Amino acid sequence: MMGSVYGGIEGGGTLSKAVLLSGDGKLLAETVGPCTNHWIGVDKCIESINDMVQRAKNQAGLDQKTPIRSLGMCLSGGEQTDAIAKIIALMRERFPSLSEHYFITTDAIGAIATASDRGGVVLISGTGSNCKLVHPDGSQIGCGGWGHMMGDEGSAFWTAHLAVKAVFDARDNLVAPPHDITHVRKAMEEYFQVTDLMGMLPHFYTNFQKSHFAGFCKKLAEGAEAGDALCQYVFAQAGRGLAKHVEAILPAVQEPLLSGELGLPILCVGSVWKSWSLLKPGFTEVLQKAASSDTFKGRFRGYSLLMLQQSSAFGGASLGAQRLGDALNIDYAANIKVFYQQTFSGNQ
Amino acid sequence: MMGSVYGGIEGGGTLSKAVLLSGDGKLLAETVGPCTNHWIGVDKCIESINDMVQRAKNQAGLDQKTPIRSLGMCLSGGEQTDAIAKIIALMRERFPSLSEHYFITTDAIGAIATASDRGGVVLISGTGSNCKLVHPDGSQIGCGGWGHMMGDEGSAFWTAHLAVKAVFDARDNLVAPPHDITHVRKAMEEYFQVTDLMGMLPHFYTNFQKSHFAGFCKKLAEGAEAGDALCQYVFAQAGRGLAKHVEAILPAVQEPLLSGELGLPILCVGSVWKSWSLLKPGFTEVLQKAASSDTFKGRFRGYSLLMLQQSSAFGGASLGAQRLGDALNIDYAANIKVFYQQTFSGNQ
Repeated sequence: MMGSVYGGIEGGGTLSKAVLLSGDGKLLAETVGPCTNHWIGVDKCIESINDMVQRAKNQAGLDQKTPIRSLGMCLSGGEQTDAIAKIIALMRERFPSLSEHYFITTDAIGAIATASDRGGVVLISGTGSNCKLVHPDGSQIGCGGWGHMMGDEGSAFWTAHLAVKAVFDARDNLVAPPHDITHVRKAMEEYFQVTDLMGMLPHFYTNFQKSHFAGFCKKLAEGAEAGDALCQYVFAQAGRGLAKHVEAILPAVQEPLLSGELGLPILCVGSVWKSWSLLKPGFTEVLQKAASSDTFKGRFRGYSLLMLQQSSAFGGASLGAQRLGDALNIDYAANIKVFYQQTFSGNQ
Repeated sequence: MMGSVYGGIEGGGTLSKAVLLSGDGKLLAETVGPCTNHWIGVDKCIESINDMVQRAKNQAGLDQKTPIRSLGMCLSGGEQTDAIAKIIALMRERFPSLSEHYFITTDAIGAIATASDRGGVVLISGTGSNCKLVHPDGSQIGCGGWGHMMGDEGSAFWTAHLAVKAVFDARDNLVAPPHDITHVRKAMEEYFQVTDLMGMLPHFYTNFQKSHFAGFCKKLAEGAEAGDALCQYVFAQAGRGLAKHVEAILPAVQEPLLSGELGLPILCVGSVWKSWSLLKPGFTEVLQKAASSDTFKGRFRGYSLLMLQQSSAFGGASLGAQRLGDALNIDYAANIKVFYQQTFSGNQ
């Protein structure tokens, strides 16, 4: 019986999740654990994964000493083949009763596999940003995901940086701010606990912490919701930046993904999407324009924005099973929710 | 006699200089030493300064045990009043025979004081960038100088980053490159010793070294000189970025600085200015446009770009003397060279 239990892991920067699924795709158990990204070290990472899965076995009334059939792990950085081989070898050695087979993929691919078995687009906007297009055959192309030094457009870090840069540029008379900076400057001084621009320098350099810097984005969302024009502006720009990722992969999208009733399904992952209403003006404008361009006219007829209702550990479990030739019978419709749809009329 | 000897220090990231001047502004001695910026630690920094000045005394045939009248030091970071007080106190304690009086200012202010006693504009473009306007009364305003996370527009780092970003954006189909990226991509792979874009990530993060990254700018200059359009483009953009710093401080420039025969004197400091011919298209375009704008029409009638022919340790010595009410008789004309002049006709 245990041979047909499939495990999945969603690795996260603050929180991780594990699921156990039966061969017919039913959720048997779900557990949470601490951060499992590579920053904490491989040993801690795999210990935490083992612990989550063993607790899940227990929860499902399964024997902890019997390995599950496979464990599919969605980890950020999961495209680095050297690191993957190392992690799997280590897990086999240290936890022989954990799982018969292992599979590692990225957070993006795991998310897609939770939403669909025919591929799709995943657009991540958390601390950083990233976009992946997964073809129905599982092959993929991407846009972004290079980190804050080389992009991250539309992410929380990027949005926070855009707002802070507007304050600096206004002070320097280098670029006129698109809107009054008073609120953003005050919010910046409060969030970073500084009294002048000079005080910001340690936050950029000696004490730089990307996630803390990105956290300022939440304050900007509050400002935008309270009506501040500059806060609203930076979110609209973030929306533009995210939509441009979709536009970038659009030429490579194959017809089946475009012609479903949802139009192009775009799976939105990450906390910045909580501010969808603020991203919307820029996001919809860019894709509206793309749809009416000569390149995409008639081909790109609409899109849907989806969010996951389940952990992407589901997708991890499914991909792990798939790798062994076992197909889990996952109810994809139950795993997603459409939160926005745009159709481009007159382009049929 | 020793009471009328004035010392100056030009602190540098790789090399430092010391000068001793007589009361009539004549150069008595000049020595060089290692890096004296704050990264090496205060102790090493002040030891190196003491060593350079004592060697200079020796060179000038002066007694090493007798303090000079004042030592004016131009150090990057020399605007931080707490750090300044600490450094001076430490120097007095450890080197009682070095100098009677001390004065610390920034590299920018030291450069201006080497070129003129009536203030001016200094526009730095080395690894980073920065612009300062010094009024005839010594007061100042600035634009930029916040480092690579918040600007450095037109610097070597910024230019190198712009070129690398064009390669990434082209690969991602995120932004169409303004020109073919083939040469820049190849030069990047050679300079950073990588075979693909993924290989660049350590250069942005774990092994990031700003000066090494900025060093790629030199390869871009070679590419531009050999005719590569993208290399030429990034330098023209750097020229635009630098000119915008001048435009930013222009409203604050007082009439005497605008009405001299050189027009607005702009002192250009830093190695990127070696590529002036490459910066020129963007630089001149921005200032031409500014001159014909309603804001500056008739007021901004031209400018000159100057380079120093002497170490800014000269300016440090002069400012140190000035602080004591002693005026050195410096031959400013001999310290500078005009390398470009633009006058805006029809704006008189």
